[in-house]
Amino acid sequence: MDTNALIPLQYALDTFYLVICGALVMWMAAGFAMLESGLVRAKNTTEILTKNVALYAVACVMYLLIGYHIMYSSPEGGFLPSLGFLIGDEHAVDLVAAGGEDAPAFSKRADFFFQVVFVATAMSIVSGAVAERMKLLAFLAFAVVMTGFIYPVQGYWKWGSGFLNQAGFLDFAGSGVVHLCGAAAALAGVLLLGARRGKYGPNGQVNAIPGANLPLATLGALILWFGWFGFNGGSQLAISSIENANAVAAAFLNTNMAAAGGLLAALIVARILFGKFDLTMALNGALAGLVAITAEPVTPSALSAVLIGAVGGVLAVGGVLLLDKLKIDDPVGAISVHGLSGIWGLLAVPLTNDGGSFAAQLLGIVCIFGWVFSASLIVWAILKAVMGVRVDAEDEYTGVDIAECGMEAYPEFTRKS
Amino acid sequence: MDTNALIPLQYALDTFYLVICGALVMWMAAGFAMLESGLVRAKNTTEILTKNVALYAVACVMYLLIGYHIMYSSPEGGFLPSLGFLIGDEHAVDLVAAGGEDAPAFSKRADFFFQVVFVATAMSIVSGAVAERMKLLAFLAFAVVMTGFIYPVQGYWKWGSGFLNQAGFLDFAGSGVVHLCGAAAALAGVLLLGARRGKYGPNGQVNAIPGANLPLATLGALILWFGWFGFNGGSQLAISSIENANAVAAAFLNTNMAAAGGLLAALIVARILFGKFDLTMALNGALAGLVAITAEPVTPSALSAVLIGAVGGVLAVGGVLLLDKLKIDDPVGAISVHGLSGIWGLLAVPLTNDGGSFAAQLLGIVCIFGWVFSASLIVWAILKAVMGVRVDAEDEYTGVDIAECGMEAYPEFTRKS
Amino acid sequence: MDTNALIPLQYALDTFYLVICGALVMWMAAGFAMLESGLVRAKNTTEILTKNVALYAVACVMYLLIGYHIMYSSPEGGFLPSLGFLIGDEHAVDLVAAGGEDAPAFSKRADFFFQVVFVATAMSIVSGAVAERMKLLAFLAFAVVMTGFIYPVQGYWKWGSGFLNQAGFLDFAGSGVVHLCGAAAALAGVLLLGARRGKYGPNGQVNAIPGANLPLATLGALILWFGWFGFNGGSQLAISSIENANAVAAAFLNTNMAAAGGLLAALIVARILFGKFDLTMALNGALAGLVAITAEPVTPSALSAVLIGAVGGVLAVGGVLLLDKLKIDDPVGAISVHGLSGIWGLLAVPLTNDGGSFAAQLLGIVCIFGWVFSASLIVWAILKAVMGVRVDAEDEYTGVDIAECGMEAYPEFTRKS
Repeated sequence: MDTNALIPLQYALDTFYLVICGALVMWMAAGFAMLESGLVRAKNTTEILTKNVALYAVACVMYLLIGYHIMYSSPEGGFLPSLGFLIGDEHAVDLVAAGGEDAPAFSKRADFFFQVVFVATAMSIVSGAVAERMKLLAFLAFAVVMTGFIYPVQGYWKWGSGFLNQAGFLDFAGSGVVHLCGAAAALAGVLLLGARRGKYGPNGQVNAIPGANLPLATLGALILWFGWFGFNGGSQLAISSIENANAVAAAFLNTNMAAAGGLLAALIVARILFGKFDLTMALNGALAGLVAITAEPVTPSALSAVLIGAVGGVLAVGGVLLLDKLKIDDPVGAISVHGLSGIWGLLAVPLTNDGGSFAAQLLGIVCIFGWVFSASLIVWAILKAVMGVRVDAEDEYTGVDIAECGMEAYPEFTRKS
Repeated sequence: MDTNALIPLQYALDTFYLVICGALVMWMAAGFAMLESGLVRAKNTTEILTKNVALYAVACVMYLLIGYHIMYSSPEGGFLPSLGFLIGDEHAVDLVAAGGEDAPAFSKRADFFFQVVFVATAMSIVSGAVAERMKLLAFLAFAVVMTGFIYPVQGYWKWGSGFLNQAGFLDFAGSGVVHLCGAAAALAGVLLLGARRGKYGPNGQVNAIPGANLPLATLGALILWFGWFGFNGGSQLAISSIENANAVAAAFLNTNMAAAGGLLAALIVARILFGKFDLTMALNGALAGLVAITAEPVTPSALSAVLIGAVGGVLAVGGVLLLDKLKIDDPVGAISVHGLSGIWGLLAVPLTNDGGSFAAQLLGIVCIFGWVFSASLIVWAILKAVMGVRVDAEDEYTGVDIAECGMEAYPEFTRKS
Repeated sequence: MDTNALIPLQYALDTFYLVICGALVMWMAAGFAMLESGLVRAKNTTEILTKNVALYAVACVMYLLIGYHIMYSSPEGGFLPSLGFLIGDEHAVDLVAAGGEDAPAFSKRADFFFQVVFVATAMSIVSGAVAERMKLLAFLAFAVVMTGFIYPVQGYWKWGSGFLNQAGFLDFAGSGVVHLCGAAAALAGVLLLGARRGKYGPNGQVNAIPGANLPLATLGALILWFGWFGFNGGSQLAISSIENANAVAAAFLNTNMAAAGGLLAALIVARILFGKFDLTMALNGALAGLVAITAEPVTPSALSAVLIGAVGGVLAVGGVLLLDKLKIDDPVGAISVHGLSGIWGLLAVPLTNDGGSFAAQLLGIVCIFGWVFSASLIVWAILKAVMGVRVDAEDEYTGVDIAECGMEAYPEFTRKS
C-alpha cells in the first residue's frame, strides 16, 4: 500500500494528541494556583493567585517573543544560543507533498503550544517558594527574564539539540529542564529574600505556619496529577505508530503509579516521624513522585515506577525537614519537591534506560543547576538593588493582599485584627 | 489507494475529537459556577451554585426537546425558524457505503453533544449578571425560553445556515452567537431587575461589594480558560485532514495567547488606574481575551492573537467602569466581558480573515443583539408580571441562600449577624 | 486495500482514546475528594481529604500487585478466581505481525491504566459514607483488601469473563461492578460503625448536619460529571471503527443527558417535598443519574437517557430520606446515590437493550451485593476486633482532623471553641 496516503491522518492524530496534552499542561497552572493559595495564609492569598495567573501570561508572551526561538533555532550541539524573534512560519509544511521519513509529525503551532505551557510550569515552581513576602512587581520582572531567557537557554541545551543532548544527557519530560530549573531559580530567590518573619525562632525552633485552605491545596495537587498525564504523556511528541502509542501508554501509566508511590511513601514516613497522617506531606510526596518519574516515564515497569516515585516521596519529606534546618524558608516545599526529587529522577534514568549514563546525567544536573541558579541570583540581585524584592515589615504583617492587590481573598471569613 | 478505506478511521478520529472538545465545554459549566460563586457574597453563594447547575440541566433538556431542531432543521438562508421536536435520527449514516465527498464527519449524537454545551454556556453568562437579587424560579423559567427558543433562533441564522450565514457574517465559535447572545439576555434582565441595594449611593458613589472567595473565582477563570480549548478548538468540527488539523492547532494556540494578552492588558490598565494589581480585573481580562478571539481563532498569527486579546482585556476594564457609571449593576462583569469584548471580536474578524467584511459583521451584531435583547426583555417582563423577578428586600438583606435554597454555603465560616 | 496497513493507526487511536478516558476517570478522584470535603463539617475535612488521596494510591498499588491478575487472568466462565502477581507482560504484542481479527486494540498498559482508576472510584464511594467518625488506619486497611481482593473478584465475574458474564448479566461501565460494589462495602461499614453522635435524636428526630463548604461540593459533583465521560465513554474500550465511534458518541451524549435528568428530577422532587431548591439534593440527583446510565449508556436514545437519569434522581432523594428513617447515617448520601441508583440502572438495561434480561440483571445484583456486602462485613468486623474502627468520643467531638492528621483544614476561618 502507498503508506503516504496515511500521512494526513497520522498528522491529524499527532496534532490532536499534542494539543490535548498541551491543554492538560496548561491546566496545571490551575493546579499550582490552588496548591499555593491553599498553603499560604489567608492574608496572602489574593497576591499568590495574582502571581500565578500573571506569570502564566508573561510566560506565554515572552516565550512567543524570544524564548521559543532561542530554544529551537540555536546551533545544533552548541552552548551559546542565538537570539531571534517569534516562532517562525506558523503554518505547517505540506506533508503529503513532502512525504517520506522527514515529514514533520505536527504543525509548529501545535509544538509551540505544547512547549509554552512547560515554560509556565517552570515559572510556577518559583512562585510558591517566594510566597508571603515578595514584591509582586519584582516577581513579574523576574518572570520576564526567566521565561524569555534563562529557561530557554538550558532548554536549548537539551531539547533544542544543544551540547547536553549531544553529551547523552536524558530528560524525557523535564525533571531537569523544567523542575530542577524552577527549583534552582526559586532557591536563588529565597536565599536573597530571607525567611518569613516568625518562621524561625531565636533558639533554632521552627514555627509551623499552617496553610489556610487545605481542600484547595488538595485540589491543586490533584489537578497537577491530572495535568501531568499531558506533561509526560505528551513529551513523546507523537502517538501515531505502535511504538509511539506504547510509549505514551507507558508514560500515562507510570506517571500515575509514581505519584501513588510517592504519596504512600511520604504518608508512611511522616506517620513514623510525626505520629500523624500528614496531608500536606502526602500531597508533596505525590508531587515528588511525579517529578521523579518525569525524567524517564517510558522505560520503567509499573512496579519500578512505584518505587521511583516512592524514593521521590521520601526525599520530599526529608528535604522539607532539611531546608528548615538550614533556615531556608519555602512555604510550599517547592524546592524539595521539584529540586531534590528532580535530581533523583535524573539519576534514576540509567536504572531502567540502557541508553543513559550517570556521568551524562550528572553533567546535566550540574549544568542546569549551575546556569539557572547563578543567572537567577544575578537577576534577583539586580532587582533587589533596583526596586527591592521584599515587602516592608508592616505589609508582611497585615498581609500582602491589601498592600499589593487592594483586596482580601476571603473578606467575610477571617477575623479582622 | 482506495481512500474510502480511510473513511472509518477519519470518522472515528473526528468523533473522538468532537466528544472530547464537547466534554471540555461541559467543564466550562464548572468554570462559570466557581467564578460566580467566588465573586458574590457568602450569603448568596448556595443560590448561585444552584442556578448554575440547574440552568445547565435545563439547557440540555430544552435543546434536546426543541432547540436543536430549530437551529439545524430550519430552511436554508431563512429568517423564520421551523419548529420541531428532538434531534432526529440519532444513528450515523453508513459512511463506508455512502463514501465520497458527502460522507458526514461524525455522528449526529456527537454533533448534538458538542452543540448542547454551547447553549448552556450562553445561559451561564446570564446567571452571573443577575446574581444576588433575582428569584431562582424566575431565572429557571427564563432559562427554559432562552435555551429552547431565543438562543436557537439566532443560532440558526448563523450556524444553521440561516440568513446571517448567507450574508457573509463570520463567527467561528460564537463571540456573537454565544457570548454576545448571553450578554444581551443578561443586560435585559439587569435593566428590569435593578441594582443590588447598597451598590450605588445617593450621591453617585459606587460601593464595591467584594466577592467572598477569590481562589474560587480564580479557579473558575482557569477552568474556563482550559475549557475554551474545546470551545474554539472543537468549532472546526473536524480534524482528520491536514487543513483541519492545522486549523485546530491554530485555534488552541491563539485561544491561549489571546487569554494571556487579555490578562496582561487588564492587569496593566488596572494598575495604572487604581495603583494595585487587581486580580478580578486580571481574570476578567483573560476571559475578555478569550471571548474576543472566539469569533476567529484560526487566521490570526499568535502575536495578533495576543493583541486581539489585549484589546478585549482593556475593553473589559473600561466596560466595568462604564456600566457602574450607568448604574447597571453586574456583580461579575459578565456584560462587559461577554458583550463588549464579543462585539470587538466580531469586528476584528476582517482584520485577519480576508473572507470577512465589516458590513456583514455589523449586520450580525445588530441582528443578534436586537433579537436577543428584545425577546429577552419581553420574557423578563412577562415573568416580572406573572411571578416577580426580584426577591423581597428582607431576603436580599439576609441573603437569598436561606430564602431560596434553605441552606448556607459556608455555615461555619461567616459571622452570624 | 490491505487493511492491515491501517492497524498501527487504529492501535494508536484506540490507545490514545483509552489513556485520555483513563485520565478523565483519575480526575474523578478529585471529584470525590471535593464532594466529600464540601459535605462534612470543617473539623473533619483534612481527614477526609487524606482518606481520598491515600485510598487512590492504595488502590493503584494493590490492583497492580494482585487485583488486575485476579480480575483478568482467572478461568473463563468461572466463579473462583486464581491468584497471581502483577499485570503480566506490559509490552504490546506486535500487532502488525499478528494482524487479522485477533489483533488487540491497545497495549496492556493502557488497559491497566484505564481499569485501575475504576477500582479507585469504587473505593472512593466508601469514604464518604463512613466520614466524620472512622479511624483512618482502619479505613486504609479496608482499602487494601477491597481494592486488592473484594473488588477484583466480582470484577472478574463480569468483566473478566467469569460466570456472571456467561449468564448474560450486562453492565457496560459498572453500575454494578463499580457503584453497587462501592455502596455495598460502604453499607457494611456504616452498619458496624454506627451513626455520628447527635445525628439521630432520642425521639426519632433526624438532625441535619450541614456541610461546611458547598462550592467545593458543587465543584466535586461537576468534576465527577466531567470525569464520567471517560468512565462511560471509555468503557467501549475501542473507538477506531464506525460502530465503536458511534457507541462512544452515544455514551458521551447519554451520560450528559442522564445527569441533567437526574439533577432536574431531584431538584423538583425536593422542592415539592421541602419547599426549597435544595442544592445538595440536586447534586446527588445528578450523580444518581450518572450512576443509573452507567449500566447501559449506548443503546438508549437521548430522551430515554434523560428519563433513566430522572428516575435515578428521584431514587436518590427517596433513598436519603429512607436511610435516615432507618438511622443509617451516610453523611454524603453515597449509599443512595451509588447503591439504589446503581440497582435501578442495572434493572433498566433490558428496557433499551434487547440483549439483556431481568433475570440475569437480578442475578448480577444479588451476586455482587451478596459478595461485596458479606466479604466487607467480615473485613470490617475483623478490623473492629483488631484495631477498632471508630474514633473515641472526644476526638469525634473535637474533630478527627487534629486527632488523625494533626492539622486543621481551615485554621483561620472557624471559630475556636
